[in-house]
Amino acid sequence: MTKIMTDYSPTATVHEVARAAGVSPATVSRILNGSARVSDAKRRAVEQAIAQLNYKPNLLAQSLKSGRAMTIGILTQDVVSPFFTESLRGIESALIGTGYAPLIVSGHWQQDEESDRVELLIARRVDGIVILSGSLSEAQITTFAQRIPIVATGHRLAARRALGIKFDQYNGARLATQHLIEMGHRRIAFIAGPVEHEDARVRLEGYRDALMNERIAYEPDMVVQGNFLESGGMLAVNQLLESRQQFTAIFAANDQSAYGARLALYRRGIRVPEDISIIGFDDLPASSYATPPLTTVRQPVYEAGLMAAQSLLQLIRGEPVDSPDLTLELIVRESVRRIN
Amino acid sequence: MTKIMTDYSPTATVHEVARAAGVSPATVSRILNGSARVSDAKRRAVEQAIAQLNYKPNLLAQSLKSGRAMTIGILTQDVVSPFFTESLRGIESALIGTGYAPLIVSGHWQQDEESDRVELLIARRVDGIVILSGSLSEAQITTFAQRIPIVATGHRLAARRALGIKFDQYNGARLATQHLIEMGHRRIAFIAGPVEHEDARVRLEGYRDALMNERIAYEPDMVVQGNFLESGGMLAVNQLLESRQQFTAIFAANDQSAYGARLALYRRGIRVPEDISIIGFDDLPASSYATPPLTTVRQPVYEAGLMAAQSLLQLIRGEPVDSPDLTLELIVRESVRRIN
Repeated sequence: MTKIMTDYSPTATVHEVARAAGVSPATVSRILNGSARVSDAKRRAVEQAIAQLNYKPNLLAQSLKSGRAMTIGILTQDVVSPFFTESLRGIESALIGTGYAPLIVSGHWQQDEESDRVELLIARRVDGIVILSGSLSEAQITTFAQRIPIVATGHRLAARRALGIKFDQYNGARLATQHLIEMGHRRIAFIAGPVEHEDARVRLEGYRDALMNERIAYEPDMVVQGNFLESGGMLAVNQLLESRQQFTAIFAANDQSAYGARLALYRRGIRVPEDISIIGFDDLPASSYATPPLTTVRQPVYEAGLMAAQSLLQLIRGEPVDSPDLTLELIVRESVRRIN
Repeated sequence: MTKIMTDYSPTATVHEVARAAGVSPATVSRILNGSARVSDAKRRAVEQAIAQLNYKPNLLAQSLKSGRAMTIGILTQDVVSPFFTESLRGIESALIGTGYAPLIVSGHWQQDEESDRVELLIARRVDGIVILSGSLSEAQITTFAQRIPIVATGHRLAARRALGIKFDQYNGARLATQHLIEMGHRRIAFIAGPVEHEDARVRLEGYRDALMNERIAYEPDMVVQGNFLESGGMLAVNQLLESRQQFTAIFAANDQSAYGARLALYRRGIRVPEDISIIGFDDLPASSYATPPLTTVRQPVYEAGLMAAQSLLQLIRGEPVDSPDLTLELIVRESVRRIN
């Protein structure tokens, strides 16, 4: 038996696996693709045959036979930003064991580049595309979706072979502001994101409305412009301190801005949270390891990537999909102090 | 004229650009590919014609005509780790304006997966591959290089169509340790990386040899095991403190371990650098924004990515390449204090 296994192992085919398991080759393929429900008994038999024959699915051969590329294209915007890389991690998790490999391209928030990259993926015969945020219009994405299944995060989409997954940024910003107010803060500065980002504009609205809801005056001088990066957070705090605004808390429109704000305060010997409280937005992995660990609003970007990929596989198989239910939540750590 | 431009713009071809510029279509292609030196006058004429005709190079058509895919495959290991994403950023910078698009896959330090992903890239007809570190053996990479040009960071390679770019980890670790010794530290704890990583083992050797070089005894109890992640850095510091080792400084084998160590000290009210000094290794972007900003050894990973891509384009054009000269350097920030 051992002898036979050794002889088989380098050349075992789907047909040999099927024969050993007593099922059809199509069933083996479906189990390998994760594309069909089969009985547990059959699945066990196939898994046992795969192990015995030391069968390794050849994705390329599989792809040639089925005419399918067995790849998922992913359009990201920034290969460095933790916000995007967490979604990539979610997508990768969803694809484990499906036989699909991810192929990643980057668009850098440039509509022309994003469009070229989607064309590149289509030309490389991917089976579907996940678009992570970016500057493509909903109309452009819908047009692409006539040629290939698409799931896009950060977009609202209503099309037959497209799904949009969008978080409620407005409520997230209200959550953060309300938390500061509940902790006794009334003089709350805001470090805004780039005005050209819709998410940044909506978070500012959420901050303003949460203040007004508690009858706290919205003061434009308490809003300083950042750039969603640490550098902008630093400059914003310097600007706030030089303008001699009185404030006890800072709401930074994203975590990276909060890190920069934190360092600017440290440089001046201002303690967090003893002297000034800070709250962020995103919950990047590094926020748990900031000193102090950062209180923030968690965007489930990993889960969004995971669900985007799962939904895309459903679209590829021609199954109906629903927009997943992903909500933002407040993560209380140690950067906000209760004041009287 | 305006009318003609408008009529031309959606369908302008390389031939029309060539005619308008008074050069051959091949010259236009070479300028677009960035693959040839042409006179400034010709280049200006072509750029003017491109602007006038509103010509947009169609990479796909270009690829079909030339039989070249105009894509560079990139095998990364971890889409989240800043260590890898900085290299990706370098590769992207190098490809700007070359007409080449990067296609990224991830191998997760799993030899089988890495090998499958390289096959996938070859099957997708990329023109060359950059391998960022990983577990493939030098022999495996050299074998792949018989089929396609390859540049691999973190590897030593000697083959005709392959180039390796490797940093001197040993000297980097000596630099860090010597800096602590020069600042008066003699009781230096070390948070090690995973033993299965060659880089981690070599950094430990550099630490040990730097101590011995200064006649400071190497004490195995001062070395605690980490995992190159923040979580491991935290646990390592807890273990050190519980073991009641006396130390005034910590050398963390990478920056992520240093962040975790920093938080563990913060939790116990131990100040950095007043009570304990910390030095890291990598110089991740976040290290400039840590509180205090982290003293560390800079690995030029961005530059390595940049040079890897530039060298790969040379290999693709059949030009000879030399291993670039990239050295590690000490970045002094605020996490190490001089003691008496």
